[in-house]
Amino acid sequence: MTNIAIEELKTLCLQLLTKNNIRAQDAEIITAHLMENECSGKASHGMVRLPQIIRAIQKNGVSNKDPEIILDQGNIAVLEANGQIGVVAGQFVVGEAIRRVMDHGLVMIGVRNYIATSGSMAHYLKQFVETGLIAIMGCNSVAMVAPPTGRERMIGTNPVGIAIPAQHNDGMIADLATSAIAYGKIMVMNERGQDIPEGLLLDKDGKPSANPKDAYEGAILPLAGHKGFSLGLMVELLAGPLLSAKAIKKDDFNSDGLFAIVIDPKKFGNSEFYEQVSQALEQIRKSPPREGYNEVTIAGDRSRTLLNENKAAGKITVADKTLEDIKRLLTRENRHVAA
Amino acid sequence: MTNIAIEELKTLCLQLLTKNNIRAQDAEIITAHLMENECSGKASHGMVRLPQIIRAIQKNGVSNKDPEIILDQGNIAVLEANGQIGVVAGQFVVGEAIRRVMDHGLVMIGVRNYIATSGSMAHYLKQFVETGLIAIMGCNSVAMVAPPTGRERMIGTNPVGIAIPAQHNDGMIADLATSAIAYGKIMVMNERGQDIPEGLLLDKDGKPSANPKDAYEGAILPLAGHKGFSLGLMVELLAGPLLSAKAIKKDDFNSDGLFAIVIDPKKFGNSEFYEQVSQALEQIRKSPPREGYNEVTIAGDRSRTLLNENKAAGKITVADKTLEDIKRLLTRENRHVAA
Repeated sequence: MTNIAIEELKTLCLQLLTKNNIRAQDAEIITAHLMENECSGKASHGMVRLPQIIRAIQKNGVSNKDPEIILDQGNIAVLEANGQIGVVAGQFVVGEAIRRVMDHGLVMIGVRNYIATSGSMAHYLKQFVETGLIAIMGCNSVAMVAPPTGRERMIGTNPVGIAIPAQHNDGMIADLATSAIAYGKIMVMNERGQDIPEGLLLDKDGKPSANPKDAYEGAILPLAGHKGFSLGLMVELLAGPLLSAKAIKKDDFNSDGLFAIVIDPKKFGNSEFYEQVSQALEQIRKSPPREGYNEVTIAGDRSRTLLNENKAAGKITVADKTLEDIKRLLTRENRHVAA
Repeated sequence: MTNIAIEELKTLCLQLLTKNNIRAQDAEIITAHLMENECSGKASHGMVRLPQIIRAIQKNGVSNKDPEIILDQGNIAVLEANGQIGVVAGQFVVGEAIRRVMDHGLVMIGVRNYIATSGSMAHYLKQFVETGLIAIMGCNSVAMVAPPTGRERMIGTNPVGIAIPAQHNDGMIADLATSAIAYGKIMVMNERGQDIPEGLLLDKDGKPSANPKDAYEGAILPLAGHKGFSLGLMVELLAGPLLSAKAIKKDDFNSDGLFAIVIDPKKFGNSEFYEQVSQALEQIRKSPPREGYNEVTIAGDRSRTLLNENKAAGKITVADKTLEDIKRLLTRENRHVAA
């Protein structure tokens, strides 16, 4: 692991993106997204995603256009990303939702057909919480998760995201993969040569597996059986057919969808809403932990603390491999441009 | 268990409700709700709830008024139940949602302060599916579930409900308690003298417990740790403060809330939505089960099959105790009226 100044890492990220022909405004969006995740303890959606994004650009080319609004009902909008990067497409959903919810109180915005990754739901949820808005989000991806009694990969790991704002920017930010284990965690365990605990993974023949490599051709089991699968299937269909996009994508990495249902609590006539939410959350946080635990937290608390600590320190610890990848890609790009 | 004609059971239910001063139209709503659950294999939300409803009426009195619309933004409405029975209050939410979504494409309706029980989400979800609508629902209840690392009961077992319509009335109906085990299941295991499996229940001192009786003063653990708790907390707050109702109800059984976010897919511009959902669901249903399982199903399939089978037979098997309770309450009421 290497300790690096946050500003230095940010500059490397911006440089690599602009050298790969990403528009300045999109490079800013992607950098802000990855840096915030990296500084919030979400390394799996931080800088490690930058080489993935660069490879997707080099393979697919990149759209330098804003996602296009192809359906507009005022309170409902569907955007076509036309191969834009997922992180940029997701940010447009946030912008449209915040702008439109002022008038309507309740909106649903979706975007389809982006590439690479839409990043972490948490980054978008945080913006809704900071704007005093409730959000329920989801995004789908290539098939990896089997039905509760099945053996074939059918749906993505499809996270559900929930944002609940409170009085002092201390709301809930819950970013919940609907698979029994996150794909990123399997990859980390693979790199470390660790076994996957029982009951999470099947091999390509549908047998229980402890070998992380089986995630490539086998299937991940859903979170909590039919409950997690039902949540994941909802996301698969709301981010798919509802947006005129695909569902059950066996080999298609470039037609993912993301949606946000956003609610303005100020339209519900309870002037004490934010205060009451804060009181409820504090009552939970202050309740006694049980044996074996030190504290009771709300989803989002830990990331908020880490982000503040890292920002105050001005430095961050990053995996050596990630930094090397980024620097190698920067050099290679220079050579390519010089050639 | 006793075999009884569906029509006979229905008549007993209607009689008992009307003898307890429930309006004819409300008795019809409650009977339809409980009968459908009973005939769909959801005995925990079937006739066993009738004595609970009667006891709640006898204790609290009953409102013979429709829930009142106290906030109306067109696409958003909040109803005050004023002590109506939850099953009736929930049915008004369905009615308002279906009426309003035609204009707006996306609506959120909530109801607060009902008594007894709002029944099963599945009964409402089924109506949305039959009307070609997507719904995300939730309802809260008295505190029973501890935070993932805590020991005090903080939130209700707060189910999340999801309705996804398809082409041939074969959509997904998912009714998901956010607790590790449903309260009703604990009560059944208590009656049978069975132990609760490890990791689901805490006693009043916060220690792991296998004794179903500990559910009275201890706490149920959340489904899948922080993921289930976050979903349950979302429901607690959206069915509570957002509707100007309470959250974290330690002893309050008469201030529950229920909400439905309802989406009309026809406003999203995909004329093949229902067909594509059916295709995706069929692809999942037809995928091979893994070792130890016979079939792959979608949430709602089993209930749909059972309901059709029971309706065709015209008869249903009901627990002796439930039938006895109902008949005793009918007789007692007669005596009371005669006295």
